[in-house]
Amino acid sequence: MSKKILRTWKHLLPALVLMVLSCKQESGDAALEGSNEEATVASADPLPSWNEGAAKSAIIEFVTAATTEGSDGFIPVKDRIATFDNDGNLWAEQPVYFQLLFAIDRIKLMAEQHPEWKNEEPYKSILEGNLKNIEAQGMQGIVKLVMTTHAGMSPQEFRKIVQDWMAFATHPKTGKPYNQMIYEPMLELLNYLRDHEFKTFIVSGGGVEFMRAWAEVTYGIPPYQVVGSSIKTEFVIENGQAVIKRLPEMEFIDDKEGKPIGINRFIGKIPVFASGNSDGDLQMLLFSDSRDPSFQLYLHHTDSIREWAYDRDSHIGKLDKGLDEALARGWTVIDMANDWKTVFPETNNDE
Amino acid sequence: MSKKILRTWKHLLPALVLMVLSCKQESGDAALEGSNEEATVASADPLPSWNEGAAKSAIIEFVTAATTEGSDGFIPVKDRIATFDNDGNLWAEQPVYFQLLFAIDRIKLMAEQHPEWKNEEPYKSILEGNLKNIEAQGMQGIVKLVMTTHAGMSPQEFRKIVQDWMAFATHPKTGKPYNQMIYEPMLELLNYLRDHEFKTFIVSGGGVEFMRAWAEVTYGIPPYQVVGSSIKTEFVIENGQAVIKRLPEMEFIDDKEGKPIGINRFIGKIPVFASGNSDGDLQMLLFSDSRDPSFQLYLHHTDSIREWAYDRDSHIGKLDKGLDEALARGWTVIDMANDWKTVFPETNNDE
Repeated sequence: MSKKILRTWKHLLPALVLMVLSCKQESGDAALEGSNEEATVASADPLPSWNEGAAKSAIIEFVTAATTEGSDGFIPVKDRIATFDNDGNLWAEQPVYFQLLFAIDRIKLMAEQHPEWKNEEPYKSILEGNLKNIEAQGMQGIVKLVMTTHAGMSPQEFRKIVQDWMAFATHPKTGKPYNQMIYEPMLELLNYLRDHEFKTFIVSGGGVEFMRAWAEVTYGIPPYQVVGSSIKTEFVIENGQAVIKRLPEMEFIDDKEGKPIGINRFIGKIPVFASGNSDGDLQMLLFSDSRDPSFQLYLHHTDSIREWAYDRDSHIGKLDKGLDEALARGWTVIDMANDWKTVFPETNNDE
Repeated sequence: MSKKILRTWKHLLPALVLMVLSCKQESGDAALEGSNEEATVASADPLPSWNEGAAKSAIIEFVTAATTEGSDGFIPVKDRIATFDNDGNLWAEQPVYFQLLFAIDRIKLMAEQHPEWKNEEPYKSILEGNLKNIEAQGMQGIVKLVMTTHAGMSPQEFRKIVQDWMAFATHPKTGKPYNQMIYEPMLELLNYLRDHEFKTFIVSGGGVEFMRAWAEVTYGIPPYQVVGSSIKTEFVIENGQAVIKRLPEMEFIDDKEGKPIGINRFIGKIPVFASGNSDGDLQMLLFSDSRDPSFQLYLHHTDSIREWAYDRDSHIGKLDKGLDEALARGWTVIDMANDWKTVFPETNNDE
């Protein structure tokens, strides 16, 4: 097993132990309704969920210049590439990455077909809700958990599993479906950029197929514009039919240095707009900053009331070096508490 | 060094020996003018370079159904993914893959800075035009050749090198710039599909950065819609600037089983339209055929006068199993000699 996955999942452990596992299995079909159309409704203000301030002004100034021929900041349409981290940037990431909550929910669901799991770690501890035990098992347990829940099927089958989960699972703290835990101001930003002929890409440490399962409906971002971590696959002919199978082995970790490497591999252009929220995004923002004109955006989680407040010492979404670099380089930093009028979309189905 | 690259380049050797190395270094700046706009000129016939016949009818029938709501063959816009092999499918591939001719030209150009190459293989033989000697060196020579010419710089620098070559190098037999060795009927097909809201992707065994350097101008296909073979890269900070560096080590071979694997990894959808010309495309066509409705297209090189005639026994672009499978599965096969009114674009600069 790759050392990289061990490194990647390592910082999840302490948070895992803190995790509240009160996933209510309520119906939430309406949750799959994308809210991204709403933001395109004609309006004098392209970013109505943003308070007036430095962040909003800087974004509008950049986009206006990028789309004004003859301006110093003009960017030809073919180079208007915008990349967005996902966890903690387009949707929330507390108390732990939602993909890990998916894996744990999946184990519970699969347990019926696996009576032996009652005596086998890490399944035993998950089924008993005893997360302290998982910590004691170290990385081996986490890796086993992910590979059991993410491999062995085709990408199409896996996406169906994720979509079913998305339709019914709810967040342990807010009780909302996970696709309602997305940031309304970021949806507006995605639409604002697309309205100005930017191509919007996700570039995230999350699993690429996990995100592809809902990103098109939720964010309006198609599968071929999602860059993420991946496991290996193989091509097989099964009953005369060509099929891709997902294998229990890591292929690529799209985090830190992996982000610019993934951008180069999948997109093949240096983004002129890069948006993230943690030190894991720093290399992507630096890569974008190697281009001129370009725009770098950090989301600083400062809102302990409407969301969560965390930065330099957080187990998840740690923003430390990135914050220093942003100040030194004059990047734009969103102060969530002050810059966002609303955080999550207002929907009819979460009251 | 990976065994895969050895396998991939192995079939090039016999052809390499046959290769005519009469590359005239003439000016050809006008060559970078894309001809893809021409085909979009409004016309009653969307495929004017195609003779009436089974291939043309089948294509038009498929696209008409795919874009007619309520028809059995209707395909939603979001699933209109079309994948095209490049070598021998969008442009010619004889007497050898043009990328190998690029590598050889590059060695000659780099030789000034490498006086030691006069006594070092495989450079010595290339510089002396003695290609029989390269055969004697086996794969090691070929791999050394490719890594010397393709690695050690950023992707941006590499593309500039390819673009400079494209502007000046000419094909040993026809004397045309290589970007005039593209197939006019296939340009029309790309445009026809795009006019009907298909996304067109290249999925080729060729190097991804080699193709990205000119595919946008020549075919109208942007870098993020090019899937190809790749070498590894690393992320470094050089003089305070973030840079990707190309490393002399294979990462991915986008051929045979690699094609559906690459399609899944980069595109994340099963193509509804797949077009190729060799056994290396068979797995891609089978993968596409796992979807319904879908369309599979093979180009059969039957034109020894205007192009080259080759199939089951060819060193390059061998079409053997693929032809059998096409007949058995009812795929559409283009008979170049009979189905194409013109082969290469008519330009002002190649007379």
